[in-house]
Amino acid sequence: MTLENKKSENLSAWYIEVIQRAQLADYSPVQGCIVFRETAYAIWERIREILDRMLKETGHRNVYFPLFIPESLLRKEAEHFEGFVPECAWVTIGGGSELGERLAIRPTSETIIYSMYSKWIRGWRDLPVKLNQWCNVVRWETKMTKPFLRTREFLWQEGHTCHATLEEAEEEIKLILQIYRRLIEEHLAIPVLVGIKSESEKFAGAFYTATLEAMMPDGKALQAGTVHNLGQNFSKPFEIIFQDRDGENKYVWQTSWGVSTRLIGAMIMVHGDDKGLIIPPKVAPIQVVCIPIFYKEEETETILEEVERVRETLLESGVRAEVDIRREYTPGWKFNEWELRGVPLRVEIGPRDVREGKVTLARRDTGERISVEEEEIVEKVEEMLNEIQKNLFERAKKFLEDMTEEASSYDNMIEILRKRGGFVRAEWCGSPECEKRVKEESGATIRLIPPGEKGVGRKTCIVCGRKSKYIVYFARAY
Amino acid sequence: MTLENKKSENLSAWYIEVIQRAQLADYSPVQGCIVFRETAYAIWERIREILDRMLKETGHRNVYFPLFIPESLLRKEAEHFEGFVPECAWVTIGGGSELGERLAIRPTSETIIYSMYSKWIRGWRDLPVKLNQWCNVVRWETKMTKPFLRTREFLWQEGHTCHATLEEAEEEIKLILQIYRRLIEEHLAIPVLVGIKSESEKFAGAFYTATLEAMMPDGKALQAGTVHNLGQNFSKPFEIIFQDRDGENKYVWQTSWGVSTRLIGAMIMVHGDDKGLIIPPKVAPIQVVCIPIFYKEEETETILEEVERVRETLLESGVRAEVDIRREYTPGWKFNEWELRGVPLRVEIGPRDVREGKVTLARRDTGERISVEEEEIVEKVEEMLNEIQKNLFERAKKFLEDMTEEASSYDNMIEILRKRGGFVRAEWCGSPECEKRVKEESGATIRLIPPGEKGVGRKTCIVCGRKSKYIVYFARAY
Repeated sequence: MTLENKKSENLSAWYIEVIQRAQLADYSPVQGCIVFRETAYAIWERIREILDRMLKETGHRNVYFPLFIPESLLRKEAEHFEGFVPECAWVTIGGGSELGERLAIRPTSETIIYSMYSKWIRGWRDLPVKLNQWCNVVRWETKMTKPFLRTREFLWQEGHTCHATLEEAEEEIKLILQIYRRLIEEHLAIPVLVGIKSESEKFAGAFYTATLEAMMPDGKALQAGTVHNLGQNFSKPFEIIFQDRDGENKYVWQTSWGVSTRLIGAMIMVHGDDKGLIIPPKVAPIQVVCIPIFYKEEETETILEEVERVRETLLESGVRAEVDIRREYTPGWKFNEWELRGVPLRVEIGPRDVREGKVTLARRDTGERISVEEEEIVEKVEEMLNEIQKNLFERAKKFLEDMTEEASSYDNMIEILRKRGGFVRAEWCGSPECEKRVKEESGATIRLIPPGEKGVGRKTCIVCGRKSKYIVYFARAY
Repeated sequence: MTLENKKSENLSAWYIEVIQRAQLADYSPVQGCIVFRETAYAIWERIREILDRMLKETGHRNVYFPLFIPESLLRKEAEHFEGFVPECAWVTIGGGSELGERLAIRPTSETIIYSMYSKWIRGWRDLPVKLNQWCNVVRWETKMTKPFLRTREFLWQEGHTCHATLEEAEEEIKLILQIYRRLIEEHLAIPVLVGIKSESEKFAGAFYTATLEAMMPDGKALQAGTVHNLGQNFSKPFEIIFQDRDGENKYVWQTSWGVSTRLIGAMIMVHGDDKGLIIPPKVAPIQVVCIPIFYKEEETETILEEVERVRETLLESGVRAEVDIRREYTPGWKFNEWELRGVPLRVEIGPRDVREGKVTLARRDTGERISVEEEEIVEKVEEMLNEIQKNLFERAKKFLEDMTEEASSYDNMIEILRKRGGFVRAEWCGSPECEKRVKEESGATIRLIPPGEKGVGRKTCIVCGRKSKYIVYFARAY
């Protein structure tokens, strides 16, 4: 029943085991592609619902563009094409015949969407355009794939906006970063560092890329979402031109941004423990599971009625509650099962509870069990779900802080990156050579350049000793 | 401003024009694939929301399976492969290399899903399995494509269930037909005939196919949804075996079923008129548009405040209301614009309305305008939206009935099918030859065999005169 692998001992094996045992995903007959099973998909539906609401409230609208991108279109922005072509899957045959031009399965949709924007946008009245789509994308990974974190097909949303000025595009980027941060920190309870990517790590074709980076238990960073300022890099080759108020024709300023089912992987890694998943209450498809405990046959009916009543009461107050009244399993077996599946709160109802008009609540995150009066169950459950949500975030936040440090020297930095991992905060001169050297010697890359952070006091690049330009966070990454 | 094409004169040209003008969809650089613009996608979101709720309430759960299907898997059920291979798009290159085995883009997901079911299902306790997925599918149409009705990529849901007995599978089919009927008739206001497909028209690989058929204004039928009883046709080649309560190993009984973005096309065709779209209130992204009417500058502010107040009041009562306060357009221009876009109800607020504490409501379906007291606006709007919903359905129902008749002879049937179109109810001996002859001479196929309908009195096949076996509905179709 218990997991064979411990999270602290072998994160990777634990991760795969917990995904299979909790039936989040399964491998499919297509190499590198997984099946999203009920629980994982239900978590994705929650994420989608939360993010979609925030996007709609800020004036974004959903649309759907074709899956296929003709090669000639993908080639229009050279850097973009170079960046994505190694990972493309190509359709070459359709309806029994060789196609005249091969079609890429979208790895991302800038090119197909912008070919339409150039047709739709005419004047300043048409701006801003703020569209989003929820869809599948394909990147033909040749590295080892890992469920949710790196698969050849995944689900995501991609936002694509056009603005009259660079300033407005910058505002949009701030807005989306704020929305993503809320989604990831407040709902998924995963703390992130926010900053800008270095040139070598930015999105292919972007002017610059902003990123939200989380820290995994093995000391590796994980990119949880990215927001690109595309500048006019795409509007020029795609000729997305508008007539401004001053009568002049100008190229639009663009942004694109996305988060994916990768977030589910981050959530599993960050919160889970040796017993299995821990799903933050706000995204949990089942927040509370009610389990009856009976010893004698004559108690059974009363207890089952009580369990059903509690479920009804919770559902009516908007708590996502479920019962497990299966006869063929013992309460102990069920406790383990629902702990494995990560349900944040358990309600136990036994004969003594019924006699005393009480129920027992057991927290998944701390294991704490308390007895509460039945009439205050809704209040207590809601309170406890909030506490669990908060505790998961704070625990992860503390870990992130513990795993972030300043190196005393270059050698010290390489040693930290190689051994313990985590984020190493350092100064950097801005040269790709220094960045490359760190990568070669430690496997770490610059994860982000935080905006407006003051220097660490050294004022020199930790690699070459020349004058530094940026504070950066190095880390190995997923 | 007005449409160039009239619905009654050239349905096909009208359909294309209204879709473009109301910005529902646009052609894309990929032949046969369209872009779903905001309004069309928002209608799809409403359809999805309504259907998803009904499916979840009846114990179905959402999942997501890979886009790709290896050729060997698609080949496992011979009839299914034969049926779908002519329409497959094939990926042959991934990550820069030729693939060992080509991958079909799913035209439907039976094969990939059932390869997993055979792994997941062990015993009777695992049954029923009732999974659904919302996704994109690709069928490489070589016929002329038409937005929403026939495109190479479209969006749909596909449900896939496994049951211990044929009876349970039959119950599932009844349930889904009922759910689909509610979605299509009660929400999209499109009346349908429900029945079974003839052998030649059934889904490739099915034991039998049930269908919901709608009637378009040009007398052609449109298949609005299908529900397949797969029998054990897939469980045998895919070895989906369960140990039953009696200890015996048995093949599961399966169903699969889907509706697609085609429903949007049906909705446009059935309800639209020469002014543009008419969207049934239950699926309309915007149910009410409030338009201010001002003649003098000094009235403007009061009227705008009033318009805003009305919008707020409606939104608070759950009515999807919008305002159009643009200064650069006249009220008359706006009336036309929102009529074109199919918003079912318009609220007009002018200076006299404000003075008298009234507002004017204008119905999109009948053009009727009434003046109502401002304090009863919510009640009146809700009442009128219900009436519009009802009227659209009844109008379409009457048309369907008018377009359904019995033929007096074979020649009479062929004449009806060729000229006016519609459904012709007739008796049929069951032979594919008779079915084929009708198709060759009129272009019509058997759309459905209604369950339990009594004979038309003739008792002989309308084609060959031999003893008849079935009542059938012939029609040409989309």
